[in-house]
Amino acid sequence: MKTFKETLDIINRRINSIDWNKYPKGLYQPIGYILSLGGKRIRPALALMSSNLYQEDIDAVMDTAIGLEIFHNFTLLHDDIMDRADIRRGNPTVHKKWSDNTAILSGDVMQIEAYKWVSKVAEDKLKRVIVLFSKMAAEVCEGQQLDMEFETQQTVDIETYLEMIRLKTAVLLATSCQIGGYIAGATSEDEDLLYQFGLNLGMAFQLKDDLLDVYGNETSFGKKIGGDILCNKKTFLLINALNLADKPTKEQLVRWIETEEKESDKIKAVTAIYNQLELKELCERKIDEYVTKAKQSLARIDVPTEKKTELNDLIVNLSKRID
Amino acid sequence: MKTFKETLDIINRRINSIDWNKYPKGLYQPIGYILSLGGKRIRPALALMSSNLYQEDIDAVMDTAIGLEIFHNFTLLHDDIMDRADIRRGNPTVHKKWSDNTAILSGDVMQIEAYKWVSKVAEDKLKRVIVLFSKMAAEVCEGQQLDMEFETQQTVDIETYLEMIRLKTAVLLATSCQIGGYIAGATSEDEDLLYQFGLNLGMAFQLKDDLLDVYGNETSFGKKIGGDILCNKKTFLLINALNLADKPTKEQLVRWIETEEKESDKIKAVTAIYNQLELKELCERKIDEYVTKAKQSLARIDVPTEKKTELNDLIVNLSKRID
Repeated sequence: MKTFKETLDIINRRINSIDWNKYPKGLYQPIGYILSLGGKRIRPALALMSSNLYQEDIDAVMDTAIGLEIFHNFTLLHDDIMDRADIRRGNPTVHKKWSDNTAILSGDVMQIEAYKWVSKVAEDKLKRVIVLFSKMAAEVCEGQQLDMEFETQQTVDIETYLEMIRLKTAVLLATSCQIGGYIAGATSEDEDLLYQFGLNLGMAFQLKDDLLDVYGNETSFGKKIGGDILCNKKTFLLINALNLADKPTKEQLVRWIETEEKESDKIKAVTAIYNQLELKELCERKIDEYVTKAKQSLARIDVPTEKKTELNDLIVNLSKRID
Repeated sequence: MKTFKETLDIINRRINSIDWNKYPKGLYQPIGYILSLGGKRIRPALALMSSNLYQEDIDAVMDTAIGLEIFHNFTLLHDDIMDRADIRRGNPTVHKKWSDNTAILSGDVMQIEAYKWVSKVAEDKLKRVIVLFSKMAAEVCEGQQLDMEFETQQTVDIETYLEMIRLKTAVLLATSCQIGGYIAGATSEDEDLLYQFGLNLGMAFQLKDDLLDVYGNETSFGKKIGGDILCNKKTFLLINALNLADKPTKEQLVRWIETEEKESDKIKAVTAIYNQLELKELCERKIDEYVTKAKQSLARIDVPTEKKTELNDLIVNLSKRID
């Protein structure tokens, strides 16, 4: 069994060894750039750790795991154009450093690269891996579509929001676990449990992200605190605030939403409303729900308990994470 | 053996029967829209006709062929954003009718749909089909990258231009032929010949496009004549004009390139320079070269000559086409 940290080291070595110095340079350089910015590598780690439940040797899953990480970074690249985001992991985004056209086209070829890597799996496993991967990939786009549609919607109900983050974020973690298990020989029952484990982990992960945007530490989070508040992003916090506030508080909140100046005042005021409505606690309870479900799925997976230690620690650490 | 027309009818029925009325609508509607605008369907036709050299029944190739057409339309969708093109097949482009963000994201999911369709091939053929398809798909992006880079380059040599159209256009036709043959059981020699056939056909096809932009008939071509001239697109004609003109003619040409007003004067003047340099004839000779090569590859394919009639007619018709 490899630890999470050992797994990450292997992944990072593998990713850093890929040569993106290909012709035409203008097309492939941005791929090397975005992959060099780091990130948690949680998706390939989940694929490898899930496979590690069944097999000591994780090589059979490695290339597919790298493909999952390339796919994830492709979605960041295109999402950043759509969201007009200038900064990613403390560095200029690809469309900012190069251009929108470069970001579109490098993203396109990056999605193809993701398929190339995912497809390196053994031939007898390929069909199912491609089917699972493609289903997930389309769902991630569906999630991004819903997220964009929220921007122009006055109200979003919380169920629709949870469906959006399921599609945009959670299914990729879920599918990473499932594919890792499948390649390594998991039964179809275990495959389903791995999927549920990853899905609930993903939900908790995204809600934690919403929380850290407001209650995180700027240095460790690596993003500006209050970024979601400033751009009126419909997060778990804002949606609940709009749905739960009494009339005067809601009016106050809507006025702040319509305010584009006074950035630090806006962050302070909206955070105060969140505090008043105890939304931090509401969000933490929701995270705990998903963490519990993830743990339950993991517990039911049919391998010796000691093999699950690393994945169990991962849930605990992700729900406690500060970045 | 099916005729080209019969093959097209089957393809169009199949494409029109796909239900894009999926959730979220804003994501999938643009796919239905761009596919409904028509087009020559030459890529799936090549795949099916190539398979028809070896098998009466073309069903084994059908879904993959549809995937090739979806991929082609995905590239149009994204290229139109990058080229700021407002009109496609006489209708507003997706980014014009909806928005840039919609065009980016619907294009992304369309590429995934292309993979889904291509992957519906029999499992024992899947690996190679995915490898061939992915190689081609990346090359198409590389071609688009070169094409975009040409915009800001003062001079382009003709070899680089031909390499660009090989990547951007010809490899998709080539791979369509190869995959169609492969699925239907072609030998590896025949696969190579099918690839070469499609590649040379694709080169001729693109050069004919360059020619029709200047010398075509507006009604049958479906695009405004002189569009490439107005946006100074580096075509076979313009690149040769810049390379072959004497000093005073080149100076005249460069002045027209820098002119953004007087549209009809510009088209007339640049066309006159092309006429003076006999570039129509040069381009036609180049097309003939590729047509001859395509015919030679077809001739060497190891199936009875009468089976090749339809593909042979296709070359002749494409090189004579007026739209």
